[in-house]
Amino acid sequence: MILSLTIIAEVNDMNKINIGILGATGAVGEMMLNIIQERNIAVNEVRLFASNKSVGKKIRFKDKTLIVEEADEHSFDGLDIVLGAASNTVAQVYAKYIVKAGALFIDNSSAFRSHPQVPLVIPCINEHHINNSQGIIANPNCATIIALMAIHPIIQLSNVTKMVVSTYQAVSGSGKCGMEELNQQMENYVQKRYSVPHVFNKPICNNVLPLIGELNENGHSSEELKLQNEGRKILDDAQFTVSCTCVRVPTMQCHSEAIYLETKDALSVEEIIKKIKNTKDLIYDENYASPLEYTNQDSVVVSRLRKDSNNDKAILLWCIGDQLRIGAATNAVLILESYLKLKFT
Amino acid sequence: MILSLTIIAEVNDMNKINIGILGATGAVGEMMLNIIQERNIAVNEVRLFASNKSVGKKIRFKDKTLIVEEADEHSFDGLDIVLGAASNTVAQVYAKYIVKAGALFIDNSSAFRSHPQVPLVIPCINEHHINNSQGIIANPNCATIIALMAIHPIIQLSNVTKMVVSTYQAVSGSGKCGMEELNQQMENYVQKRYSVPHVFNKPICNNVLPLIGELNENGHSSEELKLQNEGRKILDDAQFTVSCTCVRVPTMQCHSEAIYLETKDALSVEEIIKKIKNTKDLIYDENYASPLEYTNQDSVVVSRLRKDSNNDKAILLWCIGDQLRIGAATNAVLILESYLKLKFT
Repeated sequence: MILSLTIIAEVNDMNKINIGILGATGAVGEMMLNIIQERNIAVNEVRLFASNKSVGKKIRFKDKTLIVEEADEHSFDGLDIVLGAASNTVAQVYAKYIVKAGALFIDNSSAFRSHPQVPLVIPCINEHHINNSQGIIANPNCATIIALMAIHPIIQLSNVTKMVVSTYQAVSGSGKCGMEELNQQMENYVQKRYSVPHVFNKPICNNVLPLIGELNENGHSSEELKLQNEGRKILDDAQFTVSCTCVRVPTMQCHSEAIYLETKDALSVEEIIKKIKNTKDLIYDENYASPLEYTNQDSVVVSRLRKDSNNDKAILLWCIGDQLRIGAATNAVLILESYLKLKFT
Repeated sequence: MILSLTIIAEVNDMNKINIGILGATGAVGEMMLNIIQERNIAVNEVRLFASNKSVGKKIRFKDKTLIVEEADEHSFDGLDIVLGAASNTVAQVYAKYIVKAGALFIDNSSAFRSHPQVPLVIPCINEHHINNSQGIIANPNCATIIALMAIHPIIQLSNVTKMVVSTYQAVSGSGKCGMEELNQQMENYVQKRYSVPHVFNKPICNNVLPLIGELNENGHSSEELKLQNEGRKILDDAQFTVSCTCVRVPTMQCHSEAIYLETKDALSVEEIIKKIKNTKDLIYDENYASPLEYTNQDSVVVSRLRKDSNNDKAILLWCIGDQLRIGAATNAVLILESYLKLKFT
């Protein structure tokens, strides 16, 4: 395992960091570059890596034109931080070179999320785990980030004893090709042409698909298992249990989740809403929040918070987050910011 | 209350029934006429009633052309059964004339569902309640019919002690105008035109809306309360409890629901699937069922049945039903068939 190299990332000057993005031409990779620019991260150099078919592509970044490169064993020399937005396989191939080059790898794939030496971080929840980093920090699954950010204020008020989640996940979770497929299928539908599905196994336009990832022997999908497994690591709580159904819906870029929670103590709607409103990166929408209206922003939005009719210790809520931003790229850049802050302050 | 008239519907010859449809030009009303034809109900006469703007419209039925009429106090004289596919207000206005005319009113609105003298019927579950009819039988809410049909085989195996439901409801639930709005918004989206929502309060194309109906003082929507309230009446079980989030999604005509159930006894997936496969009007799909592929059919489809990872007495499942057919028109016609069968056999 690459981490046996125990070469720890070493950033020497937080005002002059050299950043690489692996998988820079995908939906998440492009968003990472946007967010570095938006958040005005003080970078010295940015290098973009992608697969062979994107090599040579020119991408604007501030006043510069960056040219996409193909990564090799030595590509990461001189970089301080590499943000990963590639597949598990690509992440596994290049992680060892990134770590060997002394760069910190903040990886959005699921390749290293369950590795005991890799912190899995949502900065507003477990920023302190970053201190345990040994070269790789994993970015959680998008639906996990959104759900945990939404319920964390509640966990701080009382232990959550049961959690049932149904997701309404945007096609951006399958990358640019997922978004293109929905667009193409809508065009075909309007023009009364038949669509042959490619990215999804069944049509996604005018449809919802209750399977994301692969099924295990017990009938749970890989996406459904992430929320509990990743939640246990992020929350440092081996008892955290989630019963989950993950569903792809024809929305473009923003995930929604319907959550039922049972808590150890009875909580009032008022105290929870107050807590949510006092939490950074969370918005409480007193109306009902729909994903389209919260696309392209970085907060997780909670709405429709209500007590269960039958159980004083149960609540229901609806939450939303932009899958490409807070569900992926923004969280990765927030990890980067937290890392620099912890290292230099 | 109209039922104080205690004029009980009287059908004299099951092979020569005269049927009226109130709200005949809406999505459910049109489907009722289709289903009467498909199921080859032995009708003598069919009369179609709708609001002023549809009066005079010609509709084919078998080898006849029917002309839509406006209903008045005496329109229902001579009819044996009236199927209601109109609004609550319209149902309330005309119910007394229908009952006074001696016709049975099988009403799809929610106007009479909670009335103690009105049976609320899903024939495969509580056909025997039809015997209590005093002139009106109510058709349950679409999401209620689909969920209860899906879980009824499980209830027969063991008491359900907790039920958490998240719905993925098609735009047909808002009638033809809901379907037209989704179509129009998809066309606008493809042609890069802005859509002003009319039927729904926010855009439904590329979006999901976590509010159907109105909110009560505790933050539950009217749609969310139906499943528990109607379920208690249909199942004759005052303890039946449901925690529900109802969400409109951009699918055309078929509802889906993600259901988490806790049962008194631990059940195996195999015994539940066997029971479902042996239940009339239910299909078990071993793959994962999507609403688009099950549009225009009358069965409720269950798939993705699995045990909860943490609780041996909990299961999760996904179910689907065509909102206009089994969720509305077909169930109404099945009530009609059951009524005739109970009366004449």
